[in-house]
Amino acid sequence: MPVSPLAPASFPELPVIEGVRFATAMAGVKYKNRTDVMLAELAEGSTVAGVFTRSATRSANVLDCQAKNGKSQAGRAAIIVNSGNSNAFTGRNGVEAVDSLCASVAEQTGIATDRIFTSSTGVIGEPLPYDRITAKIGELQDNLSADTMADAAKAIMTTDTFPKGSAATINVDGKQVKISGIAKGSGMIAPDMATMLVYIFTDAKIGHEALQGILSKLTDKTFNCITVDSDTSTSDTLLIGATGASGVDVTGNADFEDALHKVMLDLSHQVIRDGEGATKFVEIQVTGAANDADAKRVGLSVANSPLVKTAIAGQDANWGRIVAAVGKSGAEADRDRLSIRFGDITVAENGWRAPNYSEAEAAAYMKNEELVIGVDLGIGSGASTVWTCDLTYEYIRINADYRS
Amino acid sequence: MPVSPLAPASFPELPVIEGVRFATAMAGVKYKNRTDVMLAELAEGSTVAGVFTRSATRSANVLDCQAKNGKSQAGRAAIIVNSGNSNAFTGRNGVEAVDSLCASVAEQTGIATDRIFTSSTGVIGEPLPYDRITAKIGELQDNLSADTMADAAKAIMTTDTFPKGSAATINVDGKQVKISGIAKGSGMIAPDMATMLVYIFTDAKIGHEALQGILSKLTDKTFNCITVDSDTSTSDTLLIGATGASGVDVTGNADFEDALHKVMLDLSHQVIRDGEGATKFVEIQVTGAANDADAKRVGLSVANSPLVKTAIAGQDANWGRIVAAVGKSGAEADRDRLSIRFGDITVAENGWRAPNYSEAEAAAYMKNEELVIGVDLGIGSGASTVWTCDLTYEYIRINADYRS
Repeated sequence: MPVSPLAPASFPELPVIEGVRFATAMAGVKYKNRTDVMLAELAEGSTVAGVFTRSATRSANVLDCQAKNGKSQAGRAAIIVNSGNSNAFTGRNGVEAVDSLCASVAEQTGIATDRIFTSSTGVIGEPLPYDRITAKIGELQDNLSADTMADAAKAIMTTDTFPKGSAATINVDGKQVKISGIAKGSGMIAPDMATMLVYIFTDAKIGHEALQGILSKLTDKTFNCITVDSDTSTSDTLLIGATGASGVDVTGNADFEDALHKVMLDLSHQVIRDGEGATKFVEIQVTGAANDADAKRVGLSVANSPLVKTAIAGQDANWGRIVAAVGKSGAEADRDRLSIRFGDITVAENGWRAPNYSEAEAAAYMKNEELVIGVDLGIGSGASTVWTCDLTYEYIRINADYRS
Repeated sequence: MPVSPLAPASFPELPVIEGVRFATAMAGVKYKNRTDVMLAELAEGSTVAGVFTRSATRSANVLDCQAKNGKSQAGRAAIIVNSGNSNAFTGRNGVEAVDSLCASVAEQTGIATDRIFTSSTGVIGEPLPYDRITAKIGELQDNLSADTMADAAKAIMTTDTFPKGSAATINVDGKQVKISGIAKGSGMIAPDMATMLVYIFTDAKIGHEALQGILSKLTDKTFNCITVDSDTSTSDTLLIGATGASGVDVTGNADFEDALHKVMLDLSHQVIRDGEGATKFVEIQVTGAANDADAKRVGLSVANSPLVKTAIAGQDANWGRIVAAVGKSGAEADRDRLSIRFGDITVAENGWRAPNYSEAEAAAYMKNEELVIGVDLGIGSGASTVWTCDLTYEYIRINADYRS
């Protein structure tokens, strides 16, 4: 697979987070001759929080993480992730796989099982050959290192065309607090779902409740505002570990929240930039809605509309399809107050095409690789921004290909 | 455009409905050298009822029809429809167009404006050149005929690849009651939305309230259970006219409801069979849900999933994507009680692949042009059936092409 045309120029420098160590290995879960397992170890005193897919058919790993999230924060913690097999919809075998992985990591690292989190991503419905992973725990344990987070980003890839990382550093009272994160998603060939996995680490000091609160709030503005094809994964997992090694308590610190927001937003945008078959990165800015929830509803309705997405792929300034997507969203809307713009070009207002609208100007704008679509509902102050990509032949090719 | 491979072998014989007359004309609204306007006249004593798009950005025609529906049932009635321009999102001009059309029909036919219903379908956001239509009202009036309903089915087509008609006849106490209907949708090239228009006529005798009740109920089981691409139109309109000419009062008559259901189901399936780029007709049977609404939610979630639709296009028995679509639907579901089948082949049960599942057998089944996907949630008795088509390269080609 060629690298997405929307990929960043290079993988960023990720600052080392004191208290976190990584290792990767080739376990041969499915892929050959590449790393497919990563282990992250968090030092004693680390806080771990997470958000997970809301799918009713989520994987055994997700259910196990959810059960553990917010419980014990004592002792070291571990995150073990494999690519190539999602361990989703694998019945009792799926639970057995998670339990075996946790038991093996616990035995070989001395970390308590209730502090061991697992993720699996890849093919669905196939039994996870977890013995191939447990056979590598010793090797992983031996190779743990603080400066190999970039390798971890590669080991968790499935059909991603580039590894995804992002970082930020803030100063609090003369001391540095660092945040480094990695993600995978949402390219896939066959037969997976658009699974998204995100792991963020920081040396900030913060309790579970506060960290969980920030994480959930920021997820709603970042990862919950992106869509490639409207298909929710059974495996989506975002975990954050705060080691406290900086000695800086960031509870209630707005700068920390801003920095974490920046990292999460960057990672979520990179997922869209690796959307299957994507040739356009599209930001949909919704304003003037009755409330923020309505604004997000409109944004996702536009972002998920196959007619809007194919028009963007065709570089067609087809604003009529945006009108229709607003109309079907279920949000409060008044046709005659609605206005739409492409970048700075006002396309429609007061329920009709704008008087000065130039199709040629709009058509020229649509040739850009990065597009902004503005939708103002004209009835309130609710706002939301959503990101998506276009729907192309390549998406069909990738997903209509047979799995074998 | 070639005729859809899923099209019926021929257009059906539509029985003449006493009390209804049709005429068509070439008004040149947008298309050249083909009929693009149809007028239907209903005799005095006819009851008219309708259901309409719930889009918040619906067209001026739809708003006008909704305002008139259920009001006066006195005197003759008329339905005037044009193709080529949807008169949607055309601001004040849109209202003016509808008023002018109704005034012109009223003046030349003597029918009261509150009994004149209009529909427009085609390009959005362009002013409707309604003078081209009003110039043809006299000609239409002169050509009204009881046996030209098939011509009407052609005049309302936009990018449909075949005209759509369906009929049924029942006997009530030795007397015949006839139902004949036509529809358009939902092929389109550019730049329209998947607009669907349906007109059904019967010589049954029935009051507005009873007719509206049956129509709304049956719409939920037919037209509201189909989806090509999840994009709701700004123009969807279904009108039914009951002339009473048979002399048979069908209020509360179950045979009439069954016959009307059959006609509506047939027309709704024909819309799917003309879905853009469709190569497969897919029935999704959901059972065992907590309630019927949940079952429909699951059915539509599966039917609208781009990953499921592309897998079907690729003839891939990718049941994992169906699991994911069930999971994201928002309906109550238990992963470990879920079972899935393709036709008679049980694919998954008890939260995992079925023990006797044969990928080869499933792959062979997926080569059929007509597919049944069964989803049993295993938690209640709610059920619903939904129909859709696959998502192909051709859909992208049709919708990514520039509008001009």
